[in-house]
Amino acid sequence: MRIETLAADYGVELEWRAFLLGAIFKAQGWTDSPFNLYPSKGRYMWRDLERTCARLNIAFQKPTRFPRNGLLAARVACSYQQADWIGAFVRNVYLANFARDQDISQAAVIAECLADCGAAPDSILADSTSEAAKQLLREQCETAGMLNLFGAPSFVARGELFWGNDRLEEALAFARAGA
Amino acid sequence: MRIETLAADYGVELEWRAFLLGAIFKAQGWTDSPFNLYPSKGRYMWRDLERTCARLNIAFQKPTRFPRNGLLAARVACSYQQADWIGAFVRNVYLANFARDQDISQAAVIAECLADCGAAPDSILADSTSEAAKQLLREQCETAGMLNLFGAPSFVARGELFWGNDRLEEALAFARAGA
Repeated sequence: MRIETLAADYGVELEWRAFLLGAIFKAQGWTDSPFNLYPSKGRYMWRDLERTCARLNIAFQKPTRFPRNGLLAARVACSYQQADWIGAFVRNVYLANFARDQDISQAAVIAECLADCGAAPDSILADSTSEAAKQLLREQCETAGMLNLFGAPSFVARGELFWGNDRLEEALAFARAGA
Repeated sequence: MRIETLAADYGVELEWRAFLLGAIFKAQGWTDSPFNLYPSKGRYMWRDLERTCARLNIAFQKPTRFPRNGLLAARVACSYQQADWIGAFVRNVYLANFARDQDISQAAVIAECLADCGAAPDSILADSTSEAAKQLLREQCETAGMLNLFGAPSFVARGELFWGNDRLEEALAFARAGA
């Protein structure tokens, strides 16, 4: 929700890289989101997210189902990561899931997220099931694993890993320091 | 390292409550520190801690053994939580473990931590093995569990739980808002 505006403020170039959290979690030995696996921590994290969104003026409503399948959203984000609407699309998908409790695994929901930022849903959704799109996402998931990612959002700046919304400013400052 | 000064800045009264993380971790199904159980996340957390300490001008050196047994330190901190030197003592114990790589399970190390803040090590260490001291720590660990704590540091302000150094300012602001 914050990275595009903030990266511009810091004068840092942003490259989006979608990946699937499921495979990353599996590599840690987690068969589900840690929010679900560890109930005390999970309850706290939802409350923390609620407080953080209130502080940042970001709409938030706890999804009735969590996590939802992000495969389609990830394939689209991955294939079109250089499109000028990619940031708006990602924000739309997060708002659909975390503010409007919509089922982002459904093509109709993703189509709305695309249309809302001026992209053409029909051709983009058709593209997202191509072998090339599938292969690109597989490769980015592999790269995420090689970078030792263990959660999202993650930011890689000059080879350094920063994890979570709390570290966004630090990651951007680190990136800028190397420019 | 930061809470005593910062609580004074916010005009918030601070009550120290020592507890043992081991029992809390066990309740989550963790038999060791998550830093050790999840290597990718653990490596990141150490690096994040290093960067955070550098940013805050706090001395840091990764301990050669982690975690160390904090039972004695916790019993002392628990029995003397209202002493005027408690904040200084806690900071000394953390610096011993995380900046000087000292074995804080040893009475000699804790004695130095006490002497350094003007407390009387001999009588305090004798007290710490009393049945009352043991019972008090057991009760505080039980309370920590009932409050759904899952890590440290944790801050409870007006019934709200805040976790980690990253949330210290938010916890203090929340506490102050209710004053």
